[in-house]
Amino acid sequence: MKINTSTVIVIGIIVVLAAALVGLLLYFGNQPEPTRGIAPLTEIPAMEPDPEVWGVNFPNQYSTLQKTLTNNPRTEYGGSEPYSKLDVDPRLKTLFAGYGFSKDYNEDRGHANSLTDVEATKRVNETTPGTCYSCKSSNNPTLWSEMGMAEFDKTPFSELGSQIDFAIGCANCHEANTMRLIVTNPALEEALQAQGLDWRTFTRQEMRTVVCANCHVEYYFKGEGKYLTFPWEQGTRIENIAEYYASYAFKDWDHPDSGAPMIKMQHPEYELFTANSTHYMAGVACADCHMPYTRDGAAKFSTHDVKSPLLNAETACGACHTDVGYVTTRVAEIQGQVSETMIATEDAIVEAIDAIKAAAELEAVNETLLDEARQLHREAQLRWDFIAAENSMGFHNPEEALRILATATNLARQAQLKAVEAAGTADILKVTTP
Amino acid sequence: MKINTSTVIVIGIIVVLAAALVGLLLYFGNQPEPTRGIAPLTEIPAMEPDPEVWGVNFPNQYSTLQKTLTNNPRTEYGGSEPYSKLDVDPRLKTLFAGYGFSKDYNEDRGHANSLTDVEATKRVNETTPGTCYSCKSSNNPTLWSEMGMAEFDKTPFSELGSQIDFAIGCANCHEANTMRLIVTNPALEEALQAQGLDWRTFTRQEMRTVVCANCHVEYYFKGEGKYLTFPWEQGTRIENIAEYYASYAFKDWDHPDSGAPMIKMQHPEYELFTANSTHYMAGVACADCHMPYTRDGAAKFSTHDVKSPLLNAETACGACHTDVGYVTTRVAEIQGQVSETMIATEDAIVEAIDAIKAAAELEAVNETLLDEARQLHREAQLRWDFIAAENSMGFHNPEEALRILATATNLARQAQLKAVEAAGTADILKVTTP
Repeated sequence: MKINTSTVIVIGIIVVLAAALVGLLLYFGNQPEPTRGIAPLTEIPAMEPDPEVWGVNFPNQYSTLQKTLTNNPRTEYGGSEPYSKLDVDPRLKTLFAGYGFSKDYNEDRGHANSLTDVEATKRVNETTPGTCYSCKSSNNPTLWSEMGMAEFDKTPFSELGSQIDFAIGCANCHEANTMRLIVTNPALEEALQAQGLDWRTFTRQEMRTVVCANCHVEYYFKGEGKYLTFPWEQGTRIENIAEYYASYAFKDWDHPDSGAPMIKMQHPEYELFTANSTHYMAGVACADCHMPYTRDGAAKFSTHDVKSPLLNAETACGACHTDVGYVTTRVAEIQGQVSETMIATEDAIVEAIDAIKAAAELEAVNETLLDEARQLHREAQLRWDFIAAENSMGFHNPEEALRILATATNLARQAQLKAVEAAGTADILKVTTP
Repeated sequence: MKINTSTVIVIGIIVVLAAALVGLLLYFGNQPEPTRGIAPLTEIPAMEPDPEVWGVNFPNQYSTLQKTLTNNPRTEYGGSEPYSKLDVDPRLKTLFAGYGFSKDYNEDRGHANSLTDVEATKRVNETTPGTCYSCKSSNNPTLWSEMGMAEFDKTPFSELGSQIDFAIGCANCHEANTMRLIVTNPALEEALQAQGLDWRTFTRQEMRTVVCANCHVEYYFKGEGKYLTFPWEQGTRIENIAEYYASYAFKDWDHPDSGAPMIKMQHPEYELFTANSTHYMAGVACADCHMPYTRDGAAKFSTHDVKSPLLNAETACGACHTDVGYVTTRVAEIQGQVSETMIATEDAIVEAIDAIKAAAELEAVNETLLDEARQLHREAQLRWDFIAAENSMGFHNPEEALRILATATNLARQAQLKAVEAAGTADILKVTTP
């Protein structure tokens, strides 16, 4: 083979190219591992209570959480202005007679007010247990982890307060750094376990409902230690919960007028919504409506200004529904129907209380029948309260709300009838015909 | 100007072209008017009662109408198998005591059976007026037009029968040849007029609901002439209808046990559906679900095999809803809730009847209070029947159905209480606690 100038040039080119290739391969082979997404600006300590620390990494989520402090305007049946429910509906004073809620029952406000509001309520006194802080602070995950829930609940409210600085925050629902949605309230963990459920197997979409059940549920303080407990052992339907309380003969207080052993329902949003509601069965999560994806400039994120979807229906409802005007009209119609039915239930319960009270004052009253009347009063009122204490005026599950209210009215009227039977005379009746 | 061969040729071409143009213009100017769509095979006489004649032009619509003759399978709460409602729910015998419906109350069947079934019912006797044919035959538009409705209604049922050969058919809803949807029942025309409405101004989509109101409504026979009347003067909500009947002191019969002046509700599908139901407010018409556009080979047409959408949910619900499995599960859930609530209402009314009957048997009974109890019985039962006689187990308007049932139960229990007040003693009570 003859070697000439051209051959030399060609070989030269080949060598240069090969060297460049090897160089590039070495260069890229030695790059650091690529990061998925955006590297966090700061590392968050586990269960960090201060939302401002988390806010360095998640400024949009943090700033919208702060918006829950300044109150949004009222809606027809809710919102976060602090008004007294007792002023709006005086029947509540009769229904909750002998219990704290007859003295102080304010509309709840946004998440960032949780600590201020629990410390301001007149229902708190020197016997209040630490349990009342359960849903009020992002210090809780740390405290539950360090003290255990039994100790947390047992500690007096006034004493526990010194360790609690923050309202509801990031640590109540998120694992630091992974930002995974997690169950932080041990009472929820235990209630799910009692039903054979493990939240660690749930999908992210499922968790976008389940984390709300850290707080938005019916609960009670079990035993001397005031141990926070969700009454879900038999299920989360109202009938299951009523049966649970009956089987433990549990009561929150005795009604001073009727003498019935009463249950106060808290805010069973999770139970009502998941009782096969239209939205739940369609796979919608709490966060889809209450924390919808929101655009702010170029950023798109799940807003943490948790509030009524009616206050930003275009964003909240509009993600699925094309006609938001239609949708909000439907909400108004349905809430009106529930509200009307609920007030009729209240009237029926008030009349039942009056009848039982009047019967009890008679010497010749049949005590067995009177106790049956009291049981009916209890069962009617806990059903009514399941819907009344629930924050959606029935909209989270309209048919179930109306079904339960119809049953509650029926039971209240039966309580009234049973009181007459116990009295043996109709003189105790002051029935108001519509 | 010099004329040469080229010029002659050019002029020749111009003349030929001009002649061709004139000829073509004349030809097209003399063509018959173009027909829109397909020319009908036959001309239909106005108000032609025989659907077979219309079927020549509309074979698909005709053949599907015939399918309503052979019965579709039952659904959970309906369908068109002829079973006795009295066997399924014995409470109805008490509720309708003293009235025809306590003797014979069968599930209604498909449109093509209307004539057979009305002539077979045991509720028809020698005093039955012609009015009972109002919703049963496609002969009616002709007869109403020739006799007038007052005469039609006045004619005895047995006598009118000789002029009636056909079940419900095309002429009940369509204008011949234009196939426009029209109101044919004079009672509907008058009821709309009474509300200041003129159906001739309605859109086609509106008419796809309104033509169903030719029959699927609450009605009564007014005065001696048994004049067919819809009680809509004050509106079509149950409260409006109850108020209307109260203002005329109208009653269908006296309940033999309670002595209450009763109202039998018919089949108020139109009133319940249009009371701001979810589907109605979304612009859905009766025909969208019950007569959905159906494909048969290359043809696509509105099926006239009118039936429960649950029997062809893919076609009926699937036109709007992407997940038909989800939708039918929702229907089952809602109907279950309504059914459960309805049975509780029935129990309450039965107990009210028992109490009023027992009170009435006492010598010392307070007649004024007893009459109040009877009024409460009437009001409770007409509300219950508004939902019970309506053919959807509440699904046409779930929230409204449950709202009405809750009110009905409340009124029934108040009737029972009022009976005790009238009696002055609780001895008349045989309350069943749940």
